Amino acid sequence: MSTTSVLPKGVSKARFAEAVKAYRAIVGDAWVMVDLDRLRPYSRLMIPDQAENHAPSGAICPASVEEIQKVLAVSRQYRIPLWTISVGRNYGYGEAAPATPGQMVLDLKRMNRILEVDAELGTALVEPGVTFQQLADYIEQHKLPFWLNKPAPAPLVGPVGWTLERGMGYTRYQEAAQHFSGMEVVLADGSVVRTGMGGVANAKSWTAYRFGYGPQIDGLFMQSNLGIVTKMGIWLMKKPAATKTWVAGFRNFDDATLAVEALRDLRLDGLIDNGFVMHMSYGVALTHKRADIYKGPGAVPDAMWAGIAKQMGAPLWSAAGTLYGTPEQIAVNQALVRAAMEKIGGLFMPEEAIQGPGTLMLNNIRMLTTNQLSLEDFAIFNYRGGGCAWVAPIIPAKAADAKRCMEIIQRVKAKHGFDFFGGFMAGFSGRHFDAASILLFDRDNPEELQRAKACYLELVDETAKAGYPVYRANTQAMDLTAKYFGTAQRQFNARLKQALDPLHILAPGKSGIA
Amino acid sequence: MSTTSVLPKGVSKARFAEAVKAYRAIVGDAWVMVDLDRLRPYSRLMIPDQAENHAPSGAICPASVEEIQKVLAVSRQYRIPLWTISVGRNYGYGEAAPATPGQMVLDLKRMNRILEVDAELGTALVEPGVTFQQLADYIEQHKLPFWLNKPAPAPLVGPVGWTLERGMGYTRYQEAAQHFSGMEVVLADGSVVRTGMGGVANAKSWTAYRFGYGPQIDGLFMQSNLGIVTKMGIWLMKKPAATKTWVAGFRNFDDATLAVEALRDLRLDGLIDNGFVMHMSYGVALTHKRADIYKGPGAVPDAMWAGIAKQMGAPLWSAAGTLYGTPEQIAVNQALVRAAMEKIGGLFMPEEAIQGPGTLMLNNIRMLTTNQLSLEDFAIFNYRGGGCAWVAPIIPAKAADAKRCMEIIQRVKAKHGFDFFGGFMAGFSGRHFDAASILLFDRDNPEELQRAKACYLELVDETAKAGYPVYRANTQAMDLTAKYFGTAQRQFNARLKQALDPLHILAPGKSGIA
Repeated sequence: MSTTSVLPKGVSKARFAEAVKAYRAIVGDAWVMVDLDRLRPYSRLMIPDQAENHAPSGAICPASVEEIQKVLAVSRQYRIPLWTISVGRNYGYGEAAPATPGQMVLDLKRMNRILEVDAELGTALVEPGVTFQQLADYIEQHKLPFWLNKPAPAPLVGPVGWTLERGMGYTRYQEAAQHFSGMEVVLADGSVVRTGMGGVANAKSWTAYRFGYGPQIDGLFMQSNLGIVTKMGIWLMKKPAATKTWVAGFRNFDDATLAVEALRDLRLDGLIDNGFVMHMSYGVALTHKRADIYKGPGAVPDAMWAGIAKQMGAPLWSAAGTLYGTPEQIAVNQALVRAAMEKIGGLFMPEEAIQGPGTLMLNNIRMLTTNQLSLEDFAIFNYRGGGCAWVAPIIPAKAADAKRCMEIIQRVKAKHGFDFFGGFMAGFSGRHFDAASILLFDRDNPEELQRAKACYLELVDETAKAGYPVYRANTQAMDLTAKYFGTAQRQFNARLKQALDPLHILAPGKSGIA
Repeated sequence: MSTTSVLPKGVSKARFAEAVKAYRAIVGDAWVMVDLDRLRPYSRLMIPDQAENHAPSGAICPASVEEIQKVLAVSRQYRIPLWTISVGRNYGYGEAAPATPGQMVLDLKRMNRILEVDAELGTALVEPGVTFQQLADYIEQHKLPFWLNKPAPAPLVGPVGWTLERGMGYTRYQEAAQHFSGMEVVLADGSVVRTGMGGVANAKSWTAYRFGYGPQIDGLFMQSNLGIVTKMGIWLMKKPAATKTWVAGFRNFDDATLAVEALRDLRLDGLIDNGFVMHMSYGVALTHKRADIYKGPGAVPDAMWAGIAKQMGAPLWSAAGTLYGTPEQIAVNQALVRAAMEKIGGLFMPEEAIQGPGTLMLNNIRMLTTNQLSLEDFAIFNYRGGGCAWVAPIIPAKAADAKRCMEIIQRVKAKHGFDFFGGFMAGFSGRHFDAASILLFDRDNPEELQRAKACYLELVDETAKAGYPVYRANTQAMDLTAKYFGTAQRQFNARLKQALDPLHILAPGKSGIA
């Protein structure tokens, strides 16, 4: 036990050893880890925070709901908190490590069964450990006409954890939280609830109809520590007859913010399913190491991005998206998208017209918005040394807000010497956009780690104060983020926590729920 | 006080009189009603149940959140339950009367301000007393390019109550519960929570982005008694460039169930926004009194419907829907819908080709699926004497389930002597359908009322046992319906109730939450 990095708060070494013995009796010796070496996958961080702030006490890998129930009983007895992860990636949001030190990571990776795929309804009932790759393989093996809505690192992550964290995808389904139906949840006391139609003895629509009867409770288990989700019904996107990706170039940032409004209106018209507005720096970071393009002080200056853009023959800002449907539908819709982009000064380029350096972005967007599973976006981590934090403020879909929010991001990042990488992603109704930006830094440089941390916290703070809080925070800023959502929400969540997990066994610190 | 019909359970006449005095001091004498005559709007029923099972003790009409908070304080002091209504229609689901006798109806009709309409984002922040007519008038006055998603009796009802009960509309937005963002809720203890982005001090996306940060709590206040919703952000549908309604006739029921699957696949392809499959009896009931078409015993026999259909030159079963977009988009999409319908033997008729008796259904579908507000569907209540109950089981979008569920409905209705009126409405993802049917009866005939009650309860019971529970129940069957969703869900809801309303002041009996 001496190699355990940190004990759960208020638990003695002897009591902890007893608990570990009890956990081992449930899941088997090999599936309870307290040795520092074996805990490395659960303590490794990309986010800009010190590892000791998120050091786990250990990790447990149960294989079933029954084992989870027994693990919960031990945790209640010994007051040992459990930080639940599904596949455990959560890149740029805290990875597999707990929000606070001294928790046992409850790793559900062994619960990885695809329980049922309904090829008529396009639904998959899966366990938390299932990865997108696994689902993609299943679909391919069974030759099913479905695609997956997915995040950039899809091959390594899973739909359950991603959906629970309210991940944003790129296909026509985009918002994960809008495209599932039905959960099975284990509560802190070990009781099991199936949401929606899942409570019906002879249920036929558990994965088809989300709401059931009475209050809708499945939202309570998203970005939350009120229960452990052990099954979820994921909606599969019907494979389209065809796709066509488009890109429109803009001369400057002001014109690009008009594209936010244009994409909003196209979305409100039901004409597009996705839409992105991007600064070209992200594309450069996918293909370059920073040291190769800039050796000066501070952030890469705007004029230099403009210079690189000019060299590459690429626009500084672009809008992009993918159209789905039959070739006839795409042709009709593309004409309307083109007209909307040209109206605001965009240089519209259909997929087949893009050549040269522009294919880089085209291929990236096409990969993300179609059924390709690829790790090519991981190249971004080579840009500046592996450290990473996503900052994703939500803005209303208006040019003025897009401008104001992105100026805050650029200013704060430049102040701390970090590069821009700004962009906007249309939200599911078109009424909001995710003003996303990635903070890339060298995690092995202690000074830069400190600076990145200060920068991240200032970004979270300044965007929230301007009325654009992030929709998702990394584990170091959960409590901070929850504060911007006000006392009333925090008190409400605390009442729910008290009612459902009075001993605070489940994931203390998660989303600032206390 | 002697004219008050029923006292709240456990409250003496003297204590009740004291409470009424206290309520009156808050909202003014005129806005607290206990006189039987003035309570009539709150005790009148259309559903098949005895009025005494739903007799209110009185009604209170507060004008503000502050008044609601004070009313709650009096109710907590005197243990007087409050049954909240917004506009108070809820036709066929229990109307304005409480689920159990002895509640004060909390009527929010005076809180009817349109607080903010964002003409760029297409959102309206409204109070519960706002009607669709009011919103439509506002939109017209301000010449805004938006339409309303709405139920059949739209002119008389309001979007807040309708959305909270998870009403189903007919336009491209269809499912109300998917098309709002942001609530303000007063809890039983008087505290106020704004959900999602509404908690942020400088919120800019309250009505644009629903999720906020952390658990999503707004689902808790739908079909529920956990709080009083006092504001809601409604999403307005962008006015389409054009619309085209289509109808496809089917020879028999079996072919019509195939249309359920065809509509599902069109919906999964993102090609249609709405789709209906209907038995022609509903159209007949809109234009006839029962006594004029049938005087025999029991339900109108199937053969007779077929005869009327033949006489009218109308198909016994039809599918229908409305396409939205530019004329070019509609032309491309209509060709695909036509091909799908013809493939399963449907006789496809575009809007312009429909003449003669077929225009009845066309006009009805067009009214429901476009921006027309009309009370023409109220004609249905003349068919058999004003009594009405909706039965709306949820089925997975498969022909076999459509058939099985509809056969149960037809058999049970016939057994009790009630006419069929079956139909299917595509759910928001296409994966489920609402197998809706209206039970029409003569409420003034005590024998028929009893029979309708037995029929309704048997429909709820048989459909649920077959795995197709209703998504919404009238006030006499709330507890019954909740039972089919299992002990775990009921216990979970009870824990929430205990945490949020331990004195059970809010709407006892609602959705079976106890």
